[in-house]
Amino acid sequence: MTDHPDWIAVDWGTTHLRVFAMRGTTVIDQADSPDGMGTLSRAGFEPALLRLIGRWLDPRPDARPMRVVACGMVGARQGWAEAPYRAVPCAPVAPGELLIAPTTDPRLRVAIVPGLSQDDPADVMRGEETQLAGLLELQPGFEGCAILPGTHSKHVQIRAGRVTRFHTAMTGELFALLAQQSVLRHSTADDTPDPEAFAIGLDQGRAGQSFHALFALRAESLLAGLAPSAARARLSGLLIGAELAGLPDGPLALIGSGPLVGLYRAALAHLGREVAAHDGGTLARAGLALAAEGAPA
Amino acid sequence: MTDHPDWIAVDWGTTHLRVFAMRGTTVIDQADSPDGMGTLSRAGFEPALLRLIGRWLDPRPDARPMRVVACGMVGARQGWAEAPYRAVPCAPVAPGELLIAPTTDPRLRVAIVPGLSQDDPADVMRGEETQLAGLLELQPGFEGCAILPGTHSKHVQIRAGRVTRFHTAMTGELFALLAQQSVLRHSTADDTPDPEAFAIGLDQGRAGQSFHALFALRAESLLAGLAPSAARARLSGLLIGAELAGLPDGPLALIGSGPLVGLYRAALAHLGREVAAHDGGTLARAGLALAAEGAPA
Repeated sequence: MTDHPDWIAVDWGTTHLRVFAMRGTTVIDQADSPDGMGTLSRAGFEPALLRLIGRWLDPRPDARPMRVVACGMVGARQGWAEAPYRAVPCAPVAPGELLIAPTTDPRLRVAIVPGLSQDDPADVMRGEETQLAGLLELQPGFEGCAILPGTHSKHVQIRAGRVTRFHTAMTGELFALLAQQSVLRHSTADDTPDPEAFAIGLDQGRAGQSFHALFALRAESLLAGLAPSAARARLSGLLIGAELAGLPDGPLALIGSGPLVGLYRAALAHLGREVAAHDGGTLARAGLALAAEGAPA
Repeated sequence: MTDHPDWIAVDWGTTHLRVFAMRGTTVIDQADSPDGMGTLSRAGFEPALLRLIGRWLDPRPDARPMRVVACGMVGARQGWAEAPYRAVPCAPVAPGELLIAPTTDPRLRVAIVPGLSQDDPADVMRGEETQLAGLLELQPGFEGCAILPGTHSKHVQIRAGRVTRFHTAMTGELFALLAQQSVLRHSTADDTPDPEAFAIGLDQGRAGQSFHALFALRAESLLAGLAPSAARARLSGLLIGAELAGLPDGPLALIGSGPLVGLYRAALAHLGREVAAHDGGTLARAGLALAAEGAPA
């Protein structure tokens, strides 16, 4: 077969597994499954990977093992193999410091990119470091703050090619808990966008009013018929506004995909900040390619 | 029978039903069940009440109906009968403005105490107004701020016998969601008190750092072995500190029961505030007694 990939890029999070057959930095095929780190026991990682990439592997007995490079929660303590955090300040990815995962199939050679840690204030990331390495590949010399929105949003200071400091906000997780499981769920069950209500929430949030303003969403819904779409947009604004309140001056890079990027872009515009947006998947593959080049063969 | 009560006091919340056989303001018997408003359909309220109070009712056909006075979520839109909110500023309870619930058993006459509402900022309460009426019965002339900790904590300004303004913080609900369902659950699974960690959280919380400091609990647990008891106490401090940050000057009254009262008392002491604590159940019965005196016979 002539269409085997050179290597395989793997984005392995808590709730998903995404694999990409790569030739250099070009994606020639891809697949995904819900076999996230959170659903697998240690012995389940290799079979879960083989289910998706088996057809890309060279079946000849004398073939070289396929280079697979993975980032994300796959390297956590509860993952396939623990890749100890690298402490900032440091380059986001050091190709010489990947962890080789234990495998039984001789066709595989799996390297895991370690996450980053910060001592004070304590913080950790796993997966985002690879996107940050991709950002520096695609935009060499970037200095400023990278914003990676999500369940656990990251704000990352980058200077001279290194991560100098970062901070995690539980914005996405708080939104999900409040909108789906708290008393506010009765008042927020409509995700039609409402930019005006979102902006009101943002202003309250950046003014430090998020905690105090939450229950009013329920009360306004009971007393004044606040529309569920408006309540949901204001809740989103309250939490994103609180997250963005501490944003430093200087250049910004927004990394992500889907509706969340549009929401953060709108939030940053409302705060008068310009931002360049980058697709998170593209940056992750660029970062994994950098790691793959330097990974032990 | 000579030991029938004069009247029956009922505290009927979302998750519980508590009934008290009363002679004047004295409790002569009591009972409770998990038949909270949240578990009952409209037709289920009368049978749920009769299961607990049936033995206190006079079976003679010519007996007067028993006066039952209830407060709490029983008067919500999804409750037994909707008792429309009374708008502040107003006295916490107006005995002439109770709602009579529809009943089929002729031995019953059930009156429901309405909750209070505030237009701007929008806010509502159901149940706490009765405890506030009890506070004013037991401590006539109280002026200041009453603090009622709980799932939805209330801070209530009282002046000249009236509620002038109030605010709800979702402190208890946020704590439960974060400690039981978020990523922090892995790091907070020990509720041994830790006053030092609680105080650290309080200081961060009142400085407006609650949102920003949440994820550090997880990261410190991973990186530095932060004890689950310390992480849980700090989480509690972060949320209570945020709630208490806006507390006005002036006299305070703390209303509640159980460990939460101790926690808030400690928090207020840490903030240098003196507070008189009152048992919530005692105040609720005093408020219901006031309502019962004025209720239509």
